Amino acid sequence: MSIVLYDLCGADDRRFSPYCWRVKMALAHKGLPFETRPVPFRQIRDICDGAQTSVPVIEDDGRIVRDSFDIAVYLETTYPELPSLFGGAAGLGLSRFVDKWSVLEINATLVRMIVADIHGVLQPDDEPYFRETREKRFGARLEEVQEGREERLETLRAKLEPARQTLARQPYLSGITPLFADFILFGTLQWARIASPLQILADDDPIRPWFEGCLDLYGGIGRSAAAAA
Amino acid sequence: MSIVLYDLCGADDRRFSPYCWRVKMALAHKGLPFETRPVPFRQIRDICDGAQTSVPVIEDDGRIVRDSFDIAVYLETTYPELPSLFGGAAGLGLSRFVDKWSVLEINATLVRMIVADIHGVLQPDDEPYFRETREKRFGARLEEVQEGREERLETLRAKLEPARQTLARQPYLSGITPLFADFILFGTLQWARIASPLQILADDDPIRPWFEGCLDLYGGIGRSAAAAA
Repeated sequence: MSIVLYDLCGADDRRFSPYCWRVKMALAHKGLPFETRPVPFRQIRDICDGAQTSVPVIEDDGRIVRDSFDIAVYLETTYPELPSLFGGAAGLGLSRFVDKWSVLEINATLVRMIVADIHGVLQPDDEPYFRETREKRFGARLEEVQEGREERLETLRAKLEPARQTLARQPYLSGITPLFADFILFGTLQWARIASPLQILADDDPIRPWFEGCLDLYGGIGRSAAAAA
Repeated sequence: MSIVLYDLCGADDRRFSPYCWRVKMALAHKGLPFETRPVPFRQIRDICDGAQTSVPVIEDDGRIVRDSFDIAVYLETTYPELPSLFGGAAGLGLSRFVDKWSVLEINATLVRMIVADIHGVLQPDDEPYFRETREKRFGARLEEVQEGREERLETLRAKLEPARQTLARQPYLSGITPLFADFILFGTLQWARIASPLQILADDDPIRPWFEGCLDLYGGIGRSAAAAA
């Protein structure tokens, strides 16, 4: 039986969640058959056992696993004979560091630059929930949070410097092949690509060829999602 | 024959270099016999083949290797039968990311908080070179660069958050055992510990038990270096 991934969706079936992208790439990397079930924010409470509050969530032969990192660890443990997501215990440990760095340094900065754009790609019935929770979180209207983002691009790009310098020395964050740590940063950039017209990476950013390469992995599942106009 | 490590030294044979500490920990982790040769800044040009401009440098049976990360890779490649520093190719790749993060985010912030203290622990004959090069780099007198550092402590501690949250989930950055990625951040904190009385980590910082544990590794070679008064 195929693994089911509950995948956040917006209007026009846009799948923009950075954390769901991590999992799609992980499933594809393992070569596991999976189907995605689109879920708008307001229906997350209705999936699986009714106890879920965020996606991604996977169902695998009756087992329910949530949280993108925990899902990756679950897949690695459950399917050790399939291509590894971590390349061993050290790779797993250090991938967790990349996860924390990505969430704290990159996603937290980026969301303030695209949050009104994200609102703009939601299903209309999701808009009130999203606006209310995010405006409470940021203490300002979404449009104000995003305002002046062009001036913050340099800050975001500077925060990406550790990844940039790493990719100047080796093809992937994980070294010579793409593994889950790559999917972490890929998910972040794919989130922006799908939800926002803002160009995060400069044309000549060395991170760009790595990202383009990731879009083409596994039959191009990343690239098959349309970029924001 | 023992490996020789050229190890930066200050007055009273203080060994404070973060990059030399990475290598000492790496050599100890591999269980390789080594001796250190103390080198003040002004004598780096005299070591080995006269072509070296920074330390750490190791000499291993006639081979000269420089740069802490390259030395770790060299040791891993040359002594694959000894305990691994990376835990495989993914661990090596991701350790490079930790290296870039540490240098760009942590060391670059920290040095501006302890640079006058470092000057204070040098051999007197090293002081003019250090002052001149660092004041040129920072565009201000060392004392001015360091001034007001207490107000910058929160910024530095916030930058450590990815490591903090990782260590809240697992004993080491590298997962379940300490590997080179741990020695990278250890070297940074050991640098501050030896050169400066400034307390980088709050008393209740969860990074602290990890650091204390690292000080005790391999017979306590880290702890055997006296902390700044």
